[in-house]
Amino acid sequence: MTEPIILKGKPVADLNKKYCLQLIEENQLSPHLYVFLIGEDPASEYYVGNIKKQGKKLNIQVTIEKYNQISEDELCNKIIALNNDNDVHGIMVQKPLPKNINPAKIESLISPDKDVDGFHPLNTGLMLQEKECFLPCTAQAILETMDFYNINPNKKHIVVVGRSNVVGKPIANLLLYKAKNRSATVTICHSQTPELSVFTKQADVLITAVGVANLIKPEMIKNNVIILDAGMNEILTVDNKTTYTGDVNYELCFNKCFAITPVPGGIGSVTTSILFKNICNSAKMKKK
Amino acid sequence: MTEPIILKGKPVADLNKKYCLQLIEENQLSPHLYVFLIGEDPASEYYVGNIKKQGKKLNIQVTIEKYNQISEDELCNKIIALNNDNDVHGIMVQKPLPKNINPAKIESLISPDKDVDGFHPLNTGLMLQEKECFLPCTAQAILETMDFYNINPNKKHIVVVGRSNVVGKPIANLLLYKAKNRSATVTICHSQTPELSVFTKQADVLITAVGVANLIKPEMIKNNVIILDAGMNEILTVDNKTTYTGDVNYELCFNKCFAITPVPGGIGSVTTSILFKNICNSAKMKKK
Repeated sequence: MTEPIILKGKPVADLNKKYCLQLIEENQLSPHLYVFLIGEDPASEYYVGNIKKQGKKLNIQVTIEKYNQISEDELCNKIIALNNDNDVHGIMVQKPLPKNINPAKIESLISPDKDVDGFHPLNTGLMLQEKECFLPCTAQAILETMDFYNINPNKKHIVVVGRSNVVGKPIANLLLYKAKNRSATVTICHSQTPELSVFTKQADVLITAVGVANLIKPEMIKNNVIILDAGMNEILTVDNKTTYTGDVNYELCFNKCFAITPVPGGIGSVTTSILFKNICNSAKMKKK
Repeated sequence: MTEPIILKGKPVADLNKKYCLQLIEENQLSPHLYVFLIGEDPASEYYVGNIKKQGKKLNIQVTIEKYNQISEDELCNKIIALNNDNDVHGIMVQKPLPKNINPAKIESLISPDKDVDGFHPLNTGLMLQEKECFLPCTAQAILETMDFYNINPNKKHIVVVGRSNVVGKPIANLLLYKAKNRSATVTICHSQTPELSVFTKQADVLITAVGVANLIKPEMIKNNVIILDAGMNEILTVDNKTTYTGDVNYELCFNKCFAITPVPGGIGSVTTSILFKNICNSAKMKKK
Protein backbone atom coordinates (compact mmCIF):
# COMPACT_ATOMS: atom_id res chain seq x y z
CA MET A 1 0.00 0.00 0.00
CA THR A 2 1.32 3.42 -0.90
CA GLU A 3 1.66 6.10 1.73
CA PRO A 4 -1.46 8.34 2.12
CA ILE A 5 -1.22 11.76 0.47
CA ILE A 6 -1.17 14.70 2.87
CA LEU A 7 -3.28 17.46 1.36
CA LYS A 8 -1.42 20.49 2.67
CA GLY A 9 -3.08 23.87 2.38
CA LYS A 10 0.06 25.93 1.92
CA PRO A 11 0.61 25.39 -1.82
CA VAL A 12 -3.06 26.23 -2.47
CA ALA A 13 -2.81 29.39 -0.35
CA ASP A 14 0.45 30.32 -2.09
CA LEU A 15 -1.21 30.16 -5.48
CA ASN A 16 -3.97 32.47 -4.23
CA LYS A 17 -1.48 34.93 -2.79
CA LYS A 18 0.41 34.96 -6.06
CA TYR A 19 -2.88 35.60 -7.83
CA CYS A 20 -3.57 38.57 -5.53
CA LEU A 21 -0.13 40.14 -6.01
CA GLN A 22 -0.40 39.78 -9.77
CA LEU A 23 -3.96 41.12 -9.97
CA ILE A 24 -3.02 44.14 -7.83
CA GLU A 25 0.05 44.91 -9.92
CA GLU A 26 -1.51 44.43 -13.32
CA ASN A 27 -4.56 46.52 -12.48
CA GLN A 28 -2.95 49.04 -10.14
CA LEU A 29 -5.42 48.16 -7.39
CA SER A 30 -5.51 49.40 -3.80
CA PRO A 31 -7.69 46.71 -2.19
CA HIS A 32 -9.09 47.73 1.15
CA LEU A 33 -10.85 45.52 3.68
CA TYR A 34 -12.73 47.04 6.58
CA VAL A 35 -13.22 44.87 9.66
CA PHE A 36 -15.41 45.52 12.68
CA LEU A 37 -14.31 43.84 15.87
CA ILE A 38 -16.82 44.24 18.67
CA GLY A 39 -16.53 43.06 22.25
CA GLU A 40 -13.74 41.05 23.81
CA ASP A 41 -12.86 37.75 22.18
CA PRO A 42 -9.18 36.77 22.17
CA ALA A 43 -9.62 34.21 19.34
CA SER A 44 -11.29 36.83 17.12
CA GLU A 45 -8.59 39.39 17.91
CA TYR A 46 -5.90 36.90 17.01
CA TYR A 47 -7.68 35.95 13.78
CA VAL A 48 -8.31 39.52 12.66
CA GLY A 49 -4.80 40.60 13.64
CA ASN A 50 -3.45 37.82 11.49
CA ILE A 51 -5.55 39.01 8.52
CA LYS A 52 -4.05 42.47 8.92
CA LYS A 53 -0.49 41.12 9.11
CA GLN A 54 -0.91 38.82 6.11
CA GLY A 55 -2.75 41.51 4.16
CA LYS A 56 0.20 43.86 4.55
CA LYS A 57 2.48 41.38 2.78
CA LEU A 58 0.06 41.32 -0.16
CA ASN A 59 -0.44 45.10 -0.34
CA ILE A 60 -4.00 44.72 0.87
CA GLN A 61 -5.00 47.41 3.34
CA VAL A 62 -6.89 46.06 6.35
CA THR A 63 -8.58 48.60 8.64
CA ILE A 64 -9.73 47.23 11.97
CA GLU A 65 -12.31 49.27 13.84
CA LYS A 66 -12.59 47.94 17.37
CA TYR A 67 -15.31 48.67 19.93
CA ASN A 68 -15.90 47.28 23.37
CA GLN A 69 -19.53 48.03 22.74
CA ILE A 70 -21.59 49.77 20.11
CA SER A 71 -25.33 50.07 19.48
CA GLU A 72 -26.84 48.17 16.58
CA ASP A 73 -28.01 51.42 14.98
CA GLU A 74 -24.57 52.96 15.13
CA LEU A 75 -22.98 49.87 13.59
CA CYS A 76 -25.64 49.86 10.86
CA ASN A 77 -24.92 53.50 10.04
CA LYS A 78 -21.20 52.81 9.81
CA ILE A 79 -21.83 49.91 7.44
CA ILE A 80 -24.13 52.00 5.25
CA ALA A 81 -21.42 54.66 5.00
CA LEU A 82 -18.84 52.04 4.00
CA ASN A 83 -21.22 50.52 1.44
CA ASN A 84 -21.09 53.92 -0.27
CA ASP A 85 -17.34 54.43 0.13
CA ASN A 86 -15.63 53.67 -3.18
CA ASP A 87 -12.29 53.16 -1.44
CA VAL A 88 -13.56 50.17 0.54
CA HIS A 89 -13.86 46.85 -1.33
CA GLY A 90 -14.79 44.47 1.43
CA ILE A 91 -16.62 44.74 4.77
CA MET A 92 -16.43 42.12 7.51
CA VAL A 93 -18.11 42.06 10.90
CA GLN A 94 -16.27 39.55 13.03
CA LYS A 95 -18.31 37.11 15.08
CA PRO A 96 -19.26 36.38 17.83
CA LEU A 97 -21.22 39.61 18.24
CA PRO A 98 -22.56 40.94 21.55
CA LYS A 99 -26.22 40.17 22.24
CA ASN A 100 -27.49 43.65 21.37
CA ILE A 101 -26.56 43.11 17.72
CA ASN A 102 -28.54 40.82 15.40
CA PRO A 103 -25.99 39.08 13.15
CA ALA A 104 -28.60 38.35 10.43
CA LYS A 105 -29.49 42.04 10.22
CA ILE A 106 -25.84 42.99 9.87
CA GLU A 107 -25.13 40.31 7.27
CA SER A 108 -28.06 41.51 5.16
CA LEU A 109 -26.95 45.12 5.42
CA ILE A 110 -23.47 44.73 4.00
CA SER A 111 -23.68 45.43 0.29
CA PRO A 112 -23.56 42.06 -1.55
CA ASP A 113 -20.75 43.37 -3.76
CA LYS A 114 -18.60 44.06 -0.67
CA ASP A 115 -19.63 40.86 1.15
CA VAL A 116 -16.24 39.17 0.83
CA ASP A 117 -17.26 36.59 3.47
CA GLY A 118 -20.10 35.40 1.23
CA PHE A 119 -22.64 35.55 4.08
CA HIS A 120 -25.27 37.87 2.53
CA PRO A 121 -28.42 35.89 1.67
CA LEU A 122 -28.28 37.21 -1.89
CA ASN A 123 -24.83 35.68 -2.34
CA THR A 124 -26.05 32.47 -0.68
CA GLY A 125 -28.94 32.29 -3.16
CA LEU A 126 -26.75 33.05 -6.16
CA MET A 127 -24.46 30.26 -4.99
CA LEU A 128 -27.30 27.74 -4.80
CA GLN A 129 -28.43 28.83 -8.27
CA GLU A 130 -24.92 28.32 -9.66
CA LYS A 131 -24.41 32.00 -10.45
CA GLU A 132 -21.36 34.21 -10.03
CA CYS A 133 -21.01 35.51 -6.45
CA PHE A 134 -18.75 35.67 -3.41
CA LEU A 135 -18.59 32.21 -1.85
CA PRO A 136 -18.10 31.54 1.87
CA CYS A 137 -14.32 31.30 2.30
CA THR A 138 -14.12 27.87 3.94
CA ALA A 139 -16.41 26.24 1.38
CA GLN A 140 -14.33 27.73 -1.43
CA ALA A 141 -11.15 26.61 0.35
CA ILE A 142 -12.43 23.02 0.26
CA LEU A 143 -13.22 23.29 -3.47
CA GLU A 144 -9.84 24.79 -4.30
CA THR A 145 -8.00 22.16 -2.28
CA MET A 146 -9.86 19.47 -4.20
CA ASP A 147 -9.04 21.20 -7.49
CA PHE A 148 -5.38 21.62 -6.62
CA TYR A 149 -4.95 17.94 -5.78
CA ASN A 150 -7.05 16.76 -8.73
CA ILE A 151 -9.83 15.34 -6.60
CA ASN A 152 -12.68 15.29 -9.09
CA PRO A 153 -16.09 15.24 -7.37
CA ASN A 154 -17.85 14.02 -10.52
CA LYS A 155 -19.78 10.79 -9.91
CA LYS A 156 -18.28 10.45 -6.40
CA HIS A 157 -20.33 9.94 -3.28
CA ILE A 158 -19.36 12.82 -1.01
CA VAL A 159 -20.52 12.80 2.58
CA VAL A 160 -20.60 16.17 4.34
CA VAL A 161 -20.75 16.11 8.14
CA GLY A 162 -22.14 19.44 9.33
CA ARG A 163 -25.03 21.59 8.15
CA SER A 164 -23.93 25.11 9.04
CA ASN A 165 -24.90 28.03 6.82
CA VAL A 166 -21.25 28.94 6.28
CA VAL A 167 -19.64 25.57 5.50
CA GLY A 168 -21.81 22.43 5.48
CA LYS A 169 -24.78 23.59 3.42
CA PRO A 170 -22.71 25.72 1.00
CA ILE A 171 -20.17 22.99 0.21
CA ALA A 172 -22.96 20.42 -0.24
CA ASN A 173 -24.70 22.68 -2.76
CA LEU A 174 -21.47 23.61 -4.52
CA LEU A 175 -20.58 19.96 -5.07
CA LEU A 176 -23.88 19.43 -6.91
CA TYR A 177 -23.09 22.03 -9.60
CA LYS A 178 -24.10 20.98 -13.08
CA ALA A 179 -22.35 23.89 -14.76
CA LYS A 180 -18.84 22.96 -13.66
CA ASN A 181 -19.68 19.29 -13.90
CA ARG A 182 -18.90 18.78 -10.24
CA SER A 183 -21.89 16.45 -10.08
CA ALA A 184 -21.18 14.58 -6.88
CA THR A 185 -23.89 12.58 -5.16
CA VAL A 186 -24.00 14.31 -1.78
CA THR A 187 -25.16 13.16 1.65
CA ILE A 188 -25.42 15.71 4.44
CA CYS A 189 -25.17 14.41 8.02
CA HIS A 190 -25.24 16.33 11.28
CA SER A 191 -25.72 16.08 15.02
CA GLN A 192 -29.21 14.57 14.58
CA THR A 193 -28.07 11.78 12.24
CA PRO A 194 -28.86 8.63 14.25
CA GLU A 195 -25.98 6.46 13.04
CA LEU A 196 -23.30 8.64 11.57
CA SER A 197 -20.99 5.76 10.65
CA VAL A 198 -23.62 4.23 8.34
CA PHE A 199 -23.07 7.24 6.10
CA THR A 200 -19.42 8.13 6.67
CA LYS A 201 -18.46 4.55 5.78
CA GLN A 202 -19.97 5.00 2.34
CA ALA A 203 -18.03 8.16 1.52
CA ASP A 204 -15.59 8.26 -1.39
CA VAL A 205 -14.80 11.76 -0.13
CA LEU A 206 -15.57 12.77 3.46
CA ILE A 207 -15.88 16.46 4.33
CA THR A 208 -16.18 17.42 7.98
CA ALA A 209 -17.19 20.83 9.33
CA VAL A 210 -18.85 20.13 12.58
CA GLY A 211 -16.62 21.40 15.38
CA VAL A 212 -16.31 18.18 17.39
CA ALA A 213 -12.72 17.16 18.06
CA ASN A 214 -11.79 13.69 16.80
CA LEU A 215 -15.39 12.75 16.01
CA ILE A 216 -14.43 10.57 13.04
CA LYS A 217 -12.66 7.36 14.03
CA PRO A 218 -11.08 4.74 11.78
CA GLU A 219 -13.99 2.30 12.10
CA MET A 220 -16.25 4.99 10.58
CA ILE A 221 -14.45 5.28 7.23
CA LYS A 222 -13.75 2.94 4.35
CA ASN A 223 -10.32 2.15 2.98
CA ASN A 224 -8.89 4.67 0.51
CA VAL A 225 -11.27 7.44 1.48
CA ILE A 226 -10.26 11.05 0.80
CA ILE A 227 -10.82 13.28 3.83
CA LEU A 228 -11.13 17.07 3.84
CA ASP A 229 -11.36 18.23 7.43
CA ALA A 230 -12.53 21.82 7.92
CA GLY A 231 -12.80 21.43 11.70
CA MET A 232 -10.54 23.45 13.95
CA ASN A 233 -11.08 22.50 17.57
CA GLU A 234 -9.12 23.80 20.53
CA ILE A 235 -8.07 21.00 22.87
CA LEU A 236 -5.74 20.62 25.83
CA THR A 237 -2.75 18.30 25.60
CA VAL A 238 -1.76 15.99 28.47
CA ASP A 239 0.71 18.63 29.68
CA ASN A 240 -2.09 21.22 29.71
CA LYS A 241 -1.10 23.12 26.60
CA THR A 242 -3.59 24.39 24.01
CA THR A 243 -3.46 22.75 20.63
CA TYR A 244 -5.79 22.32 17.65
CA THR A 245 -7.31 19.26 16.13
CA GLY A 246 -9.84 18.61 13.39
CA ASP A 247 -13.14 16.74 13.41
CA VAL A 248 -11.25 13.64 12.29
CA ASN A 249 -8.87 11.64 14.45
CA TYR A 250 -6.01 12.20 12.05
CA GLU A 251 -3.47 9.86 13.56
CA LEU A 252 -5.77 6.88 13.84
CA CYS A 253 -7.47 7.41 10.48
CA PHE A 254 -4.33 8.28 8.51
CA ASN A 255 -3.41 4.80 7.30
CA LYS A 256 -6.88 4.02 5.98
CA CYS A 257 -6.96 7.15 3.81
CA PHE A 258 -5.97 7.62 0.21
CA ALA A 259 -5.48 11.30 1.07
CA ILE A 260 -6.21 13.56 4.04
CA THR A 261 -5.88 17.24 5.02
CA PRO A 262 -3.89 17.91 8.18
CA VAL A 263 -5.23 20.15 10.98
CA PRO A 264 -3.74 22.69 11.35
CA GLY A 265 -2.13 23.23 7.95
CA GLY A 266 -5.01 22.04 5.77
CA ILE A 267 -8.28 23.75 4.84
CA GLY A 268 -7.89 26.42 7.52
CA SER A 269 -4.67 27.66 6.01
CA VAL A 270 -6.35 28.17 2.64
CA THR A 271 -9.35 30.10 4.01
CA THR A 272 -7.66 33.46 4.58
CA SER A 273 -6.11 33.40 1.12
CA ILE A 274 -9.63 33.05 -0.30
CA LEU A 275 -10.72 36.10 1.66
CA PHE A 276 -7.84 38.06 0.09
CA LYS A 277 -8.73 36.80 -3.36
CA ASN A 278 -12.34 37.91 -2.82
CA ILE A 279 -11.15 41.37 -1.76
CA CYS A 280 -8.84 41.72 -4.76
CA ASN A 281 -11.56 40.54 -7.15
CA SER A 282 -13.93 43.01 -5.54
CA ALA A 283 -11.41 45.84 -6.02
CA LYS A 284 -10.94 44.85 -9.66
CA MET A 285 -14.71 44.71 -10.35
CA LYS A 286 -15.16 48.15 -8.83
CA LYS A 287 -12.38 49.63 -10.93
CA LYS A 288 -14.07 48.81 -14.24
CA MET B 1 -49.40 -6.24 5.75
CA THR B 2 -51.68 -3.21 5.83
CA GLU B 3 -52.65 -1.43 2.65
CA PRO B 4 -50.28 1.41 1.62
CA ILE B 5 -51.48 4.92 2.41
CA ILE B 6 -52.24 7.08 -0.62
CA LEU B 7 -51.01 10.60 0.13
CA LYS B 8 -53.57 12.59 -1.81
CA GLY B 9 -52.89 16.26 -2.40
CA LYS B 10 -56.49 17.43 -2.35
CA PRO B 11 -57.00 17.68 1.42
CA VAL B 12 -53.73 19.61 1.72
CA ALA B 13 -54.75 21.98 -1.08
CA ASP B 14 -58.20 22.37 0.47
CA LEU B 15 -56.67 23.50 3.76
CA ASN B 16 -54.61 26.10 1.90
CA LYS B 17 -57.63 27.37 -0.01
CA LYS B 18 -59.58 27.65 3.22
CA TYR B 19 -56.63 29.58 4.68
CA CYS B 20 -56.70 31.98 1.72
CA LEU B 21 -60.45 32.63 1.91
CA GLN B 22 -60.24 33.26 5.64
CA LEU B 23 -57.20 35.54 5.40
CA ILE B 24 -58.83 37.57 2.63
CA GLU B 25 -62.06 37.95 4.56
CA GLU B 26 -60.55 38.75 7.94
CA ASN B 27 -58.18 41.34 6.52
CA GLN B 28 -60.31 42.69 3.69
CA LEU B 29 -57.60 41.88 1.16
CA SER B 30 -57.73 42.18 -2.62
CA PRO B 31 -54.84 39.90 -3.60
CA HIS B 32 -53.64 40.44 -7.13
CA LEU B 33 -51.25 38.24 -9.12
CA TYR B 34 -49.76 39.50 -12.35
CA VAL B 35 -48.58 36.87 -14.85
CA PHE B 36 -46.53 37.35 -18.00
CA LEU B 37 -47.01 34.71 -20.65
CA ILE B 38 -44.61 35.12 -23.54
CA GLY B 39 -44.46 33.10 -26.74
CA GLU B 40 -46.53 30.08 -27.69
CA ASP B 41 -46.55 27.16 -25.27
CA PRO B 42 -49.81 25.23 -24.91
CA ALA B 43 -48.80 23.66 -21.56
CA SER B 44 -47.99 27.10 -20.10
CA GLU B 45 -51.25 28.54 -21.41
CA TYR B 46 -53.18 25.70 -19.84
CA TYR B 47 -51.32 26.07 -16.52
CA VAL B 48 -51.75 29.84 -16.31
CA GLY B 49 -55.37 29.64 -17.42
CA ASN B 50 -55.99 27.18 -14.61
CA ILE B 51 -54.40 29.58 -12.09
CA LYS B 52 -56.77 32.31 -13.26
CA LYS B 53 -59.79 30.03 -12.99
CA GLN B 54 -58.88 28.71 -9.55
CA GLY B 55 -57.93 32.19 -8.36
CA LYS B 56 -61.39 33.47 -9.21
CA LYS B 57 -62.97 30.96 -6.82
CA LEU B 58 -60.73 32.27 -4.05
CA ASN B 59 -61.29 35.97 -4.77
CA ILE B 60 -57.73 36.31 -5.99
CA GLN B 61 -57.40 38.50 -9.06
CA VAL B 62 -55.12 37.04 -11.72
CA THR B 63 -54.10 39.31 -14.59
CA ILE B 64 -52.49 37.57 -17.53
CA GLU B 65 -50.49 39.71 -19.93
CA LYS B 66 -49.73 37.72 -23.06
CA TYR B 67 -47.22 38.53 -25.78
CA ASN B 68 -46.16 36.57 -28.81
CA GLN B 69 -42.89 38.41 -28.49
CA ILE B 70 -41.47 41.22 -26.41
CA SER B 71 -37.98 42.67 -25.99
CA GLU B 72 -36.12 42.01 -22.76
CA ASP B 73 -35.94 45.75 -22.03
CA GLU B 74 -39.65 46.20 -22.44
CA LEU B 75 -40.41 43.26 -20.16
CA CYS B 76 -37.94 44.62 -17.57
CA ASN B 77 -39.66 48.02 -17.64
CA LYS B 78 -43.06 46.40 -17.13
CA ILE B 79 -41.75 44.43 -14.15
CA ILE B 80 -40.18 47.53 -12.60
CA ALA B 81 -43.52 49.33 -12.91
CA LEU B 82 -45.33 46.42 -11.23
CA ASN B 83 -42.72 46.27 -8.46
CA ASN B 84 -43.83 49.80 -7.61
CA ASP B 85 -47.55 49.17 -8.00
CA ASN B 86 -49.14 48.80 -4.57
CA ASP B 87 -52.15 46.98 -6.02
CA VAL B 88 -50.03 44.08 -7.26
CA HIS B 89 -48.92 41.50 -4.67
CA GLY B 90 -47.28 38.87 -6.82
CA ILE B 91 -45.46 38.82 -10.16
CA MET B 92 -44.84 35.68 -12.19
CA VAL B 93 -43.08 35.28 -15.51
CA GLN B 94 -44.09 31.93 -16.93
CA LYS B 95 -41.39 29.72 -18.39
CA PRO B 96 -40.17 28.66 -20.91
CA LEU B 97 -39.14 32.10 -22.15
CA PRO B 98 -38.09 32.93 -25.73
CA LYS B 99 -34.33 33.04 -26.31
CA ASN B 100 -34.10 36.83 -26.36
CA ILE B 101 -34.97 36.95 -22.66
CA ASN B 102 -32.55 35.90 -19.92
CA PRO B 103 -34.60 34.12 -17.23
CA ALA B 104 -32.01 34.79 -14.50
CA LYS B 105 -32.15 38.53 -15.20
CA ILE B 106 -35.95 38.50 -15.00
CA GLU B 107 -35.97 36.42 -11.80
CA SER B 108 -33.58 38.85 -10.13
CA LEU B 109 -35.60 41.85 -11.21
CA ILE B 110 -38.91 40.87 -9.62
CA SER B 111 -39.02 42.47 -6.21
CA PRO B 112 -38.28 39.73 -3.61
CA ASP B 113 -41.42 40.70 -1.69
CA LYS B 114 -43.56 40.02 -4.79
CA ASP B 115 -41.64 36.91 -5.81
CA VAL B 116 -44.45 34.46 -5.01
CA ASP B 117 -42.68 31.72 -6.99
CA GLY B 118 -39.71 31.91 -4.61
CA PHE B 119 -37.20 32.06 -7.48
CA HIS B 120 -35.36 35.31 -6.64
CA PRO B 121 -31.82 34.53 -5.43
CA LEU B 122 -32.44 36.58 -2.28
CA ASN B 123 -35.35 34.32 -1.35
CA THR B 124 -33.26 31.27 -2.24
CA GLY B 125 -30.52 32.48 0.10
CA LEU B 126 -32.93 33.30 2.91
CA MET B 127 -34.34 29.80 2.52
CA LEU B 128 -30.90 28.19 2.84
CA GLN B 129 -30.24 30.34 5.90
CA GLU B 130 -33.52 29.24 7.49
CA LYS B 131 -35.03 32.72 7.40
CA GLU B 132 -38.57 33.83 6.56
CA CYS B 133 -39.13 34.09 2.79
CA PHE B 134 -41.24 32.91 -0.12
CA LEU B 135 -40.39 29.28 -0.81
CA PRO B 136 -40.55 27.62 -4.23
CA CYS B 137 -44.11 26.27 -4.47
CA THR B 138 -43.32 22.63 -5.25
CA ALA B 139 -40.77 22.34 -2.44
CA GLN B 140 -43.26 23.84 0.00
CA ALA B 141 -45.96 21.50 -1.35
CA ILE B 142 -43.75 18.53 -0.45
CA LEU B 143 -43.20 19.89 3.07
CA GLU B 144 -46.90 20.56 3.63
CA THR B 145 -47.88 17.12 2.36
CA MET B 146 -45.41 15.58 4.81
CA ASP B 147 -46.79 17.75 7.60
CA PHE B 148 -50.40 16.95 6.78
CA TYR B 149 -49.79 13.19 6.86
CA ASN B 150 -47.56 13.37 9.94
CA ILE B 151 -44.41 12.30 8.13
CA ASN B 152 -41.75 13.62 10.46
CA PRO B 153 -38.38 14.09 8.70
CA ASN B 154 -36.48 14.19 11.98
CA LYS B 155 -33.73 11.56 12.10
CA LYS B 156 -34.96 10.00 8.84
CA HIS B 157 -32.74 9.33 5.86
CA ILE B 158 -34.37 11.21 3.01
CA VAL B 159 -33.13 10.64 -0.51
CA VAL B 160 -33.91 13.38 -3.03
CA VAL B 161 -33.61 12.46 -6.71
CA GLY B 162 -33.13 15.66 -8.70
CA ARG B 163 -30.97 18.74 -8.19
CA SER B 164 -32.97 21.50 -9.86
CA ASN B 165 -32.90 25.02 -8.43
CA VAL B 166 -36.67 24.99 -8.00
CA VAL B 167 -37.33 21.61 -6.38
CA GLY B 168 -34.40 19.28 -5.67
CA LYS B 169 -31.92 21.66 -4.06
CA PRO B 170 -34.58 23.66 -2.15
CA ILE B 171 -36.31 20.61 -0.65
CA ALA B 172 -32.94 19.09 0.32
CA ASN B 173 -31.96 22.27 2.16
CA LEU B 174 -35.39 22.67 3.75
CA LEU B 175 -35.27 19.17 5.19
CA LEU B 176 -32.00 20.00 6.97
CA TYR B 177 -33.57 22.86 8.99
CA LYS B 178 -32.43 22.99 12.58
CA ALA B 179 -34.97 25.63 13.57
CA LYS B 180 -38.06 23.55 12.85
CA ASN B 181 -36.26 20.41 13.93
CA ARG B 182 -36.74 18.85 10.53
CA SER B 183 -33.23 17.46 10.84
CA ALA B 184 -33.30 14.76 8.21
CA THR B 185 -30.11 13.22 6.93
CA VAL B 186 -30.35 14.04 3.24
CA THR B 187 -28.81 12.46 0.14
CA ILE B 188 -29.15 14.25 -3.19
CA CYS B 189 -28.91 12.11 -6.33
CA HIS B 190 -29.27 13.12 -9.97
CA SER B 191 -28.60 12.14 -13.56
CA GLN B 192 -24.85 11.77 -12.87
CA THR B 193 -25.27 9.43 -9.89
CA PRO B 194 -23.59 6.24 -11.11
CA GLU B 195 -25.80 3.71 -9.31
CA LEU B 196 -29.01 5.38 -8.32
CA SER B 197 -30.49 2.29 -6.67
CA VAL B 198 -27.62 2.13 -4.15
CA PHE B 199 -29.05 5.32 -2.67
CA THR B 200 -32.78 5.02 -3.33
CA LYS B 201 -32.77 1.62 -1.58
CA GLN B 202 -31.56 3.29 1.61
CA ALA B 203 -34.31 5.90 1.72
CA ASP B 204 -36.77 6.02 4.58
CA VAL B 205 -38.44 8.76 2.56
CA LEU B 206 -37.85 9.06 -1.18
CA ILE B 207 -38.52 12.37 -2.94
CA THR B 208 -38.37 12.47 -6.73
CA ALA B 209 -38.29 15.60 -8.88
CA VAL B 210 -36.35 14.63 -11.92
CA GLY B 211 -38.77 14.53 -14.86
CA VAL B 212 -38.12 10.98 -16.02
CA ALA B 213 -41.28 8.88 -16.33
CA ASN B 214 -41.27 5.69 -14.25
CA LEU B 215 -37.57 5.99 -13.37
CA ILE B 216 -38.01 4.40 -9.93
CA LYS B 217 -38.80 0.70 -10.06
CA PRO B 218 -39.69 -1.64 -7.19
CA GLU B 219 -36.22 -3.20 -7.01
CA MET B 220 -34.83 0.29 -6.26
CA ILE B 221 -36.76 0.87 -3.03
CA LYS B 222 -36.90 -0.80 0.36
CA ASN B 223 -40.03 -2.15 1.99
CA ASN B 224 -42.17 0.40 3.82
CA VAL B 225 -40.60 3.40 2.14
CA ILE B 226 -42.58 6.65 1.97
CA ILE B 227 -42.54 8.14 -1.53
CA LEU B 228 -43.28 11.76 -2.45
CA ASP B 229 -43.24 12.05 -6.22
CA ALA B 230 -43.06 15.59 -7.60
CA GLY B 231 -42.56 14.40 -11.18
CA MET B 232 -45.22 15.13 -13.78
CA ASN B 233 -44.30 13.54 -17.08
CA GLU B 234 -46.43 13.53 -20.19
CA ILE B 235 -46.61 10.07 -21.76
CA LEU B 236 -48.64 8.40 -24.48
CA THR B 237 -50.87 5.46 -23.59
CA VAL B 238 -51.08 2.36 -25.81
CA ASP B 239 -54.12 3.85 -27.55
CA ASN B 240 -52.13 7.03 -28.29
CA LYS B 241 -53.73 9.28 -25.69
CA THR B 242 -51.81 11.74 -23.55
CA THR B 243 -51.59 10.98 -19.86
CA TYR B 244 -49.35 11.91 -16.96
CA THR B 245 -47.10 9.84 -14.77
CA GLY B 246 -44.59 10.56 -12.04
CA ASP B 247 -40.91 9.72 -11.72
CA VAL B 248 -41.93 6.58 -9.84
CA ASN B 249 -43.58 3.56 -11.36
CA TYR B 250 -46.58 3.87 -9.07
CA GLU B 251 -48.33 0.63 -9.90
CA LEU B 252 -45.30 -1.59 -9.53
CA CYS B 253 -43.94 0.18 -6.45
CA PHE B 254 -47.26 0.61 -4.65
CA ASN B 255 -47.26 -2.59 -2.62
CA LYS B 256 -43.74 -2.06 -1.25
CA CYS B 257 -44.59 1.39 0.10
CA PHE B 258 -45.80 2.42 3.50
CA ALA B 259 -47.26 5.51 1.80
CA ILE B 260 -47.05 7.12 -1.64
CA THR B 261 -48.33 10.23 -3.45
CA PRO B 262 -50.32 9.54 -6.63
CA VAL B 263 -49.53 11.33 -9.92
CA PRO B 264 -51.62 13.21 -10.83
CA GLY B 265 -53.43 14.07 -7.61
CA GLY B 266 -50.43 14.27 -5.32
CA ILE B 267 -47.78 16.98 -4.94
CA GLY B 268 -48.78 18.71 -8.17
CA SER B 269 -52.27 19.35 -6.89
CA VAL B 270 -50.89 21.10 -3.80
CA THR B 271 -48.50 23.38 -5.69
CA THR B 272 -51.01 25.92 -7.01
CA SER B 273 -52.60 26.26 -3.57
CA ILE B 274 -49.19 27.25 -2.22
CA LEU B 275 -48.90 29.92 -4.89
CA PHE B 276 -52.25 31.33 -3.75
CA LYS B 277 -51.15 31.22 -0.12
CA ASN B 278 -47.99 33.11 -1.03
CA ILE B 279 -50.05 35.76 -2.86
CA CYS B 280 -52.46 36.17 0.05
CA ASN B 281 -49.61 36.38 2.55
CA SER B 282 -47.94 38.95 0.34
CA ALA B 283 -51.16 41.02 0.20
CA LYS B 284 -51.46 40.83 3.99
CA MET B 285 -47.85 41.90 4.56
CA LYS B 286 -48.27 44.87 2.27
CA LYS B 287 -51.44 45.97 4.04
CA LYS B 288 -49.73 46.45 7.40
